[in-house]
Amino acid sequence: MSIVKLVEYADAAPEVRAVYDEIMRARGTDWVNNFWKALAQDPALLRRTWEQVQQVMAPGALDPLVKEMVYVAVSATNGCEYCTCSHTAAARKKGMSEAMLMELMAVVGLANQTNRLANGLRIPVDPQFK
Amino acid sequence: MSIVKLVEYADAAPEVRAVYDEIMRARGTDWVNNFWKALAQDPALLRRTWEQVQQVMAPGALDPLVKEMVYVAVSATNGCEYCTCSHTAAARKKGMSEAMLMELMAVVGLANQTNRLANGLRIPVDPQFK
Amino acid sequence: MSIVKLVEYADAAPEVRAVYDEIMRARGTDWVNNFWKALAQDPALLRRTWEQVQQVMAPGALDPLVKEMVYVAVSATNGCEYCTCSHTAAARKKGMSEAMLMELMAVVGLANQTNRLANGLRIPVDPQFK
Amino acid sequence: MSIVKLVEYADAAPEVRAVYDEIMRARGTDWVNNFWKALAQDPALLRRTWEQVQQVMAPGALDPLVKEMVYVAVSATNGCEYCTCSHTAAARKKGMSEAMLMELMAVVGLANQTNRLANGLRIPVDPQFK
Amino acid sequence: MSIVKLVEYADAAPEVRAVYDEIMRARGTDWVNNFWKALAQDPALLRRTWEQVQQVMAPGALDPLVKEMVYVAVSATNGCEYCTCSHTAAARKKGMSEAMLMELMAVVGLANQTNRLANGLRIPVDPQFK
Amino acid sequence: MSIVKLVEYADAAPEVRAVYDEIMRARGTDWVNNFWKALAQDPALLRRTWEQVQQVMAPGALDPLVKEMVYVAVSATNGCEYCTCSHTAAARKKGMSEAMLMELMAVVGLANQTNRLANGLRIPVDPQFK
Repeated sequence: MSIVKLVEYADAAPEVRAVYDEIMRARGTDWVNNFWKALAQDPALLRRTWEQVQQVMAPGALDPLVKEMVYVAVSATNGCEYCTCSHTAAARKKGMSEAMLMELMAVVGLANQTNRLANGLRIPVDPQFK
Repeated sequence: MSIVKLVEYADAAPEVRAVYDEIMRARGTDWVNNFWKALAQDPALLRRTWEQVQQVMAPGALDPLVKEMVYVAVSATNGCEYCTCSHTAAARKKGMSEAMLMELMAVVGLANQTNRLANGLRIPVDPQFK
Repeated sequence: MSIVKLVEYADAAPEVRAVYDEIMRARGTDWVNNFWKALAQDPALLRRTWEQVQQVMAPGALDPLVKEMVYVAVSATNGCEYCTCSHTAAARKKGMSEAMLMELMAVVGLANQTNRLANGLRIPVDPQFK
Repeated sequence: MSIVKLVEYADAAPEVRAVYDEIMRARGTDWVNNFWKALAQDPALLRRTWEQVQQVMAPGALDPLVKEMVYVAVSATNGCEYCTCSHTAAARKKGMSEAMLMELMAVVGLANQTNRLANGLRIPVDPQFK
Repeated sequence: MSIVKLVEYADAAPEVRAVYDEIMRARGTDWVNNFWKALAQDPALLRRTWEQVQQVMAPGALDPLVKEMVYVAVSATNGCEYCTCSHTAAARKKGMSEAMLMELMAVVGLANQTNRLANGLRIPVDPQFK
Repeated sequence: MSIVKLVEYADAAPEVRAVYDEIMRARGTDWVNNFWKALAQDPALLRRTWEQVQQVMAPGALDPLVKEMVYVAVSATNGCEYCTCSHTAAARKKGMSEAMLMELMAVVGLANQTNRLANGLRIPVDPQFK
């Protein structure tokens, strides 16, 4: 089903195992999800992507729950099943309630609607917004 | 430039003026942005969309600033110039700093990247996420 | 502004001129729009695309105005300025009124919204629809 | 499989049942499809979306079958399986033949192709189309 | 599962069989994949699309393997499962290694990321690139 | 026009200047393009993105020109003007001829077309491709 072979821990090269260990430690879990097992076909891509996720999703000017919800919003817009499911799960773990999820989806739906009204009618940007 | 004629207040029918008045009152401004002036070609669409925006963007389980940032995230993903500019302006008005905007964009960029890694490799969703 | 040089009639090779002549004859105009002048950089692409447009947009099980409006709907969804402008113009020529355009946009907006609600919540397709 | 629990009629709150009843009455069916059962997690979103669908898809300047086909065109463009399946079924009910569906898809495919030719070559919009 | 009935060779009209025969001959296979069996509902669409594929994917200024990889990149970006699977298979047949596939995906991911950074921040195109 | 202030070299903090210097050195130019000047609002994002670009676009299993063309294909598909212009320029610098560009666009257009035919008809993936 996956286009590339998923790399299991037992079969992984040391540099792949090192990333898997970091993932499990950071998340307090004893398993690694399929996304990383697929990227592991390219250990450099695996490490780079994991480090990017760590840096981008860390607390900063935005809190991690807001970041997870933005992630879900983008994934829903792009129709990515994997990321929608995995980041909804992550957002719930960080405190997203069902009411929050439904409001999030309402905003995503509205924005996708008005994006097309604006693009389809080629509405010029008001000078006040520039 | 706009595909339909923008309806100015002076030329607007009473039911269009009524919506314009509500918009200006709700926002404490003395002008209406082009998005609404284009929708005014269809007064029913204008009213329905304005009411939807009011309801969806109101404070609820999510706070209005988070909602504006989600709006920006979707608009950036879809490449909608109008909504990106207008909702970035709205988010800034509600307190989004430059640091928050840049972190928002970093999440949007990351999600768009991993959406394609997951979709391009057809990675199966882990049973734990279902 | 264009990424490739637009090929003007005066500078065009005979096989390009032949397509330009067909376009002007089919449309009863004395000019060719920029889309074709850009494709003319690759005469085979120009001819193939023109023939495909002729065949797909011809009257058939669907009438040509419906086809133009579907074209506008797709172009608005994809955010393509060129095709939105050119096919809205074509649809108007074939009889699309402002009221029809606004209803078309309302459907496009609604569909883009519910597409994301369905994708974001991963709603399973009912067996009745399969 | 669904990210939120589908709300069955037997478990639904009165305001949700009221919408379900309207849906079944409007369609002359004795069942409600999953899309509404998912939205029912947020009764306000459920009601608002149902009312919007009723208004937008009603006969007007465009006939309902044309609207359904536009809906299918947008859903196919966005890759939304749920809406593609449900609105193709709805369009067939309203009279779309297989020949009409295939012509619709040919237009959708063509538009998606030329959208990218125009965007990829950044072809400037002709003044005649503005 | 498919929205239209797949047309099997045994049931196919002569003009459909003629295309199936060409496909099998061109590919040296004794089967035709589902994409063509679905398009066969509209024999003119089937023939036109097959001829377009033959012409576009033939060796030219770009070699066929590069073209297949570009096809995969677009399909991954659009989230099209069918084309991602079929064109990854085709690219592998033409020599794409696992290392090449992973690098391809890394570029696709990166481009999708920076596309949104550029669009979300509305970065003006430098005059040097025009 | 840009949503964030572009950071010029003269006004840049040392860690931003360091990246700018690397960019100019790597490219043998005396200027930095706007994309980086916008990202410079967030020095960590600037450095991370620059390093990712360096790693992903370096020669490897795929040659750099193929990578640039894949970048253009994705950017055209997403309708990103900035990346379409900048990466077309980069691809030309690396040897892409006009004939190669036109063939690239033909593949991009074809893939976008068949992606929608496959998604719109929900064609099941053949077991041979799995």
